[in-house]
Amino acid sequence: MNITDNINLTDKGNDNINNEIITDVLIVGGGPAGMMTGITAAQFCPGKKVLVVRKESDAVIPCGIPYIFGTLGGTDEDMAGRLPLIAAGGEILIGNIVEIDNIRQIAYMEYINQDYNSEDEQNENIAAADGKISAQFLTENINKQQRLTKTNNGNLVLIKFNRLVLATGGRNFIPPIKGTDLEGVFSIQKDYNYLENLFTNLIPKVKKLAIIGGGFIGVEFADEIRKLGIEVHIIEMLPHLMQVSFDLDVCAKVEEILESRGIAVHTGCQVEEIISDPSEKKVAGLRIKDKEDIKADAVLIAIGVKPNVELAKKIGLTLSRSGGVWVDAFQRSREDDKIFAVGDCAHKQDFFTRKANHAMIASQAAAEGRIAGMNLYSLRLSRYNAGSVSVYSSEIDGLAFGVAGLTQAQAVAEGFDILIGESRLPDHHPASMPNTTEIYCRLIFSKESMQLLGGQITGGQTTGELVNTIGLAIQMHATATDIATMQFGSQPRLTPSLHPMVAATGDALRKNVQIV
Amino acid sequence: MNITDNINLTDKGNDNINNEIITDVLIVGGGPAGMMTGITAAQFCPGKKVLVVRKESDAVIPCGIPYIFGTLGGTDEDMAGRLPLIAAGGEILIGNIVEIDNIRQIAYMEYINQDYNSEDEQNENIAAADGKISAQFLTENINKQQRLTKTNNGNLVLIKFNRLVLATGGRNFIPPIKGTDLEGVFSIQKDYNYLENLFTNLIPKVKKLAIIGGGFIGVEFADEIRKLGIEVHIIEMLPHLMQVSFDLDVCAKVEEILESRGIAVHTGCQVEEIISDPSEKKVAGLRIKDKEDIKADAVLIAIGVKPNVELAKKIGLTLSRSGGVWVDAFQRSREDDKIFAVGDCAHKQDFFTRKANHAMIASQAAAEGRIAGMNLYSLRLSRYNAGSVSVYSSEIDGLAFGVAGLTQAQAVAEGFDILIGESRLPDHHPASMPNTTEIYCRLIFSKESMQLLGGQITGGQTTGELVNTIGLAIQMHATATDIATMQFGSQPRLTPSLHPMVAATGDALRKNVQIV
Repeated sequence: MNITDNINLTDKGNDNINNEIITDVLIVGGGPAGMMTGITAAQFCPGKKVLVVRKESDAVIPCGIPYIFGTLGGTDEDMAGRLPLIAAGGEILIGNIVEIDNIRQIAYMEYINQDYNSEDEQNENIAAADGKISAQFLTENINKQQRLTKTNNGNLVLIKFNRLVLATGGRNFIPPIKGTDLEGVFSIQKDYNYLENLFTNLIPKVKKLAIIGGGFIGVEFADEIRKLGIEVHIIEMLPHLMQVSFDLDVCAKVEEILESRGIAVHTGCQVEEIISDPSEKKVAGLRIKDKEDIKADAVLIAIGVKPNVELAKKIGLTLSRSGGVWVDAFQRSREDDKIFAVGDCAHKQDFFTRKANHAMIASQAAAEGRIAGMNLYSLRLSRYNAGSVSVYSSEIDGLAFGVAGLTQAQAVAEGFDILIGESRLPDHHPASMPNTTEIYCRLIFSKESMQLLGGQITGGQTTGELVNTIGLAIQMHATATDIATMQFGSQPRLTPSLHPMVAATGDALRKNVQIV
Repeated sequence: MNITDNINLTDKGNDNINNEIITDVLIVGGGPAGMMTGITAAQFCPGKKVLVVRKESDAVIPCGIPYIFGTLGGTDEDMAGRLPLIAAGGEILIGNIVEIDNIRQIAYMEYINQDYNSEDEQNENIAAADGKISAQFLTENINKQQRLTKTNNGNLVLIKFNRLVLATGGRNFIPPIKGTDLEGVFSIQKDYNYLENLFTNLIPKVKKLAIIGGGFIGVEFADEIRKLGIEVHIIEMLPHLMQVSFDLDVCAKVEEILESRGIAVHTGCQVEEIISDPSEKKVAGLRIKDKEDIKADAVLIAIGVKPNVELAKKIGLTLSRSGGVWVDAFQRSREDDKIFAVGDCAHKQDFFTRKANHAMIASQAAAEGRIAGMNLYSLRLSRYNAGSVSVYSSEIDGLAFGVAGLTQAQAVAEGFDILIGESRLPDHHPASMPNTTEIYCRLIFSKESMQLLGGQITGGQTTGELVNTIGLAIQMHATATDIATMQFGSQPRLTPSLHPMVAATGDALRKNVQIV
């Protein structure tokens, strides 16, 4: 029997509570953290019922959002499927958890009546569901879920649980300046209807877009929106774009490429106000401190995300000073080891420093989901979260760039005495092979221990996986010795003849050489 | 002063020894192992003179050889440059070491008068030399080297050294069957003139090529030669191609692709004899045990390489039972810790079993070169060789495939109780992103310790780097726990949403799950 079989599907009118659901695991939120917790729990706790409740009937893939507007050509092309969860044995309901009684282990849910928007969801899901689910299974389950979520409306449902996982995500940070409520000012929400509206109604009318914030989201959006022929300005308070994530040479390269694509880059610019047109309703541009105004008929605010901890606060969970739910190494809350938090709503500790790590990225959220999912009913020794390493990558106009661990600036600020190694190599060999791109690799070591602290890559198609290799090396506590003697494969069509990490480590080691 | 400055460039006629060179490090052989030893020694031992002596004026990049005949369109496109060595402060001479007196630390070299064949060498080298060498430096050094190697001819040169590194490579294994000496029978030699002759004179006349041996070289050659429109047969003794390196599902996929490209795959076929045409000089085909003859006007023998240990034997170094020079963890010989051996001529011990590991690949050879180069004058603690992991990858017609560590068959044969995890994911996400290819990942764990033993990938452009990540994980002794909780970046254009290794590890862990 499925969890949702005992829901009465007939309309009972205005009764306040007309249904009761019994589950074992209740996961609130269905982004990458919530879905991954659900999938993992369903797989690793086979005797337990696992239910995800999320507000969005069709969730989008967070890091694909910028590409909706250019490369993908539509929101339908960026759907995060529910079917991997269902295939694993979990269930999902579309609703809003309005209240939690953590003592009695009960939650109250409002159903949300939403039509399914994504025609391609089924195909998407088949692709995502790692090829092991039959098409028939998919169809049956989609139909059942649609029936349930469409029939019930406006009534509270009581959900009994014995493990609670908060995966309530984040909210865009809106700066406390004038004009953020004007028509034409928007931020990115991971919601199908919101994005579909942006894509269909707002973006096509825009002639000049100003983007506040020069981080990953701002940069990726700038590049994609520019492809539509729109005039794009990107405004960053710090001296360089992406400066929080990369060392300056990579930042400079990103700026150069954006500018070569006709994007206006304004760094070292503080936005004082979003200015309106004479109607005082619609945006007209940005007022910049000590500089000229920037005209724009739309403004995207992309300066970061804050943990969404409303429910956590209501039930009295301790928050960290960074604003997220305090969690232990197994993603458990401080107050109750049956209540977990994962993803953007949970505190993240830095791998090296134990300080807060503010990187809110889907891959990190999903990693936390896997950890929580494994540890819900019994701690599986050492499947813990060693701290955030902040691994990410992106691409603009053929230049891919990525980072793992600490940047030079971060390492120095923490007090590390560092040693940097660099390498530049063609990504195929010999360099005369077709489609060869240069890979630049920069590794940062602690000078005394020669432990790897961080690395950055610019290059071609392999950049994302090279950054992941650096991430793994950091997490395995690799030293320069480990990397210098690392064995690797080299193949003309696929890799350089020398691994970029090995080459960069050699460069760092040489700087330490004494005459022998 | 450079090592070679004291060579007398005037012709002294037939005097037996007309020159004397004093170096610190003498490296015999200039393939990947020798060159990397030289580069590393020059970088890490700045007070020492480093000299590489090799026979080939223009060395080719070993793993690029198959591509000369198709993708690259010529031998000139596959040159391994000498300039990274020169840039590091080492020197190179083209010659043949005929005798070594290891007690007196003297070697005797015959000069080889060879014209430079590769017009593109300089460009090649600039690309390979990691962007840090000025064009002027390159030109000056090329000119000097050309002058030296062209002027002296036919006379023995005496070279004094205090460290000797043997990097004498391997020789193709020719099976003891009839007909291997017929016209039209060839094997692959890492030599410019030999390959240039093949490319210019032999291959263009071939209509039917039979390749004996279904390993990496055989498979890559088959694919490239087929692109020229030649009828290609590939003959393997084992039940599947690539069976020594991959598990059977990957082998089957490779066979399927080769066949779809019109290559005739003959597995489970033992070649009894190479048959000749009526002239009894030229090859006409292959006699196969218990099967029909295969007709061919050329035969490529690609069944493996044996260590070339002639010089090592002459000076009395201990050989391992596998035939290579016995070396310790620092690549030192048993008899003399001032004599090193690296690359295909040196014994390789398996990372897991300590048995012989017969993988003779350029990346492994270069890794050994780095280790020897670092340890020539003082052991730099723990810069040792932990054993061979056998990391390699290849690509045929858009399908890339690679392996690191043990295959399922090897692990079982060694006596491991294993657990296998698999994943299939699109290499971009959502799967609707352009140019998306499926990645298949298969990881093999020791069931008790959950240590990672090996992994295989089939996929697209990132396959080589994914296999390198598996290789690093093995070398860092990663367990399933480490990989399951590994943080990684995911980016729509560059990676799957879930790391293939994490997904496959999850699959393996689930098979171990007890109801909780």
